[in-house]
Amino acid sequence: MTTLPPKHDFPVSDVRRYLEPGPIVLVSSRWLDQTNIMTMGWHTVIEFAPALIGCVIASANHSFDLIRHSRECVINLPTTRLTDTAVRIGDTSGRDIDKFQGFGLTKREATSVQAPMIGECHANLECRLHDDALVDKYNFFIFEVVRAHVVRAPKYPETQHYTGDGVFVVAGKVISCRSLFRPGML
Amino acid sequence: MTTLPPKHDFPVSDVRRYLEPGPIVLVSSRWLDQTNIMTMGWHTVIEFAPALIGCVIASANHSFDLIRHSRECVINLPTTRLTDTAVRIGDTSGRDIDKFQGFGLTKREATSVQAPMIGECHANLECRLHDDALVDKYNFFIFEVVRAHVVRAPKYPETQHYTGDGVFVVAGKVISCRSLFRPGML
Repeated sequence: MTTLPPKHDFPVSDVRRYLEPGPIVLVSSRWLDQTNIMTMGWHTVIEFAPALIGCVIASANHSFDLIRHSRECVINLPTTRLTDTAVRIGDTSGRDIDKFQGFGLTKREATSVQAPMIGECHANLECRLHDDALVDKYNFFIFEVVRAHVVRAPKYPETQHYTGDGVFVVAGKVISCRSLFRPGML
Repeated sequence: MTTLPPKHDFPVSDVRRYLEPGPIVLVSSRWLDQTNIMTMGWHTVIEFAPALIGCVIASANHSFDLIRHSRECVINLPTTRLTDTAVRIGDTSGRDIDKFQGFGLTKREATSVQAPMIGECHANLECRLHDDALVDKYNFFIFEVVRAHVVRAPKYPETQHYTGDGVFVVAGKVISCRSLFRPGML
């Protein structure tokens, strides 16, 4: 077993750094005595402050009920060391297995929500349901990130982005265009 | 001037291939005699069929009014050959300049919407406004992709994904995990 990387508080208004590039994420949840993890690729930043994230959690998922009842979750960012695990998590149902145990992942207590954080992930974003207006129609949840914990280095971790049909593209190479931006546009 | 790559019809229910990885996109619009382009990073797939895309278009943008009135746009996918252009488009306002002319981009007529397509982009997704329920509250638009035109090769173009603060990560490397997926989960 490898040592889990230490994490540090991170400003919630800056979580775009991890989510705006569009990686797949692992969503962990808890309701009563059940916990679960799902793999999610359909999400977007919606606002900086409050730090709002919109995402689709299909109603057929076991996580849908846990999150709808608890109105909380943690969005965890896996790096490419966890590609296979993320696929297997998406390929199984929490109705059949305990995914933390089944995939050897470490539950860490969050500070502001009951949902567990995944120790092996690069970032853990504690989320509370902010607006469920589009849940019935599109399974679309808007969460507020209320606390964020991230590994300090690397600043831009290598992440996987799903294209469908079993294929991911990997984002790793970093390019800075700071000099091209007007100051207010960064 | 380089020759523009030929494009082919692409099934709208498969446009996740281009959008789900989370690249920045260029949104083109037309209202009366005005056209415009904006750079956008806050978007997500919402449904396969109808092919729904949710995205944030801030009300301060000139494009907001053009799109709110016309209820249409084209989502264009730039590859990394257009990184600098995408930044400059995001850094300027259509109130001040004609962005097609100013950045040397080619207007192509769309087939199902009045908004122009950007010839230099890898994919052009013609969109109609499907649901504006969250526009007033979050500037969040839900579009239906009604027609898609894409360059056939490369199948997975190199794209740029914004992290904030002037920094992009580039997604290019492709990894297939097809063998890990259960058939129904692809």
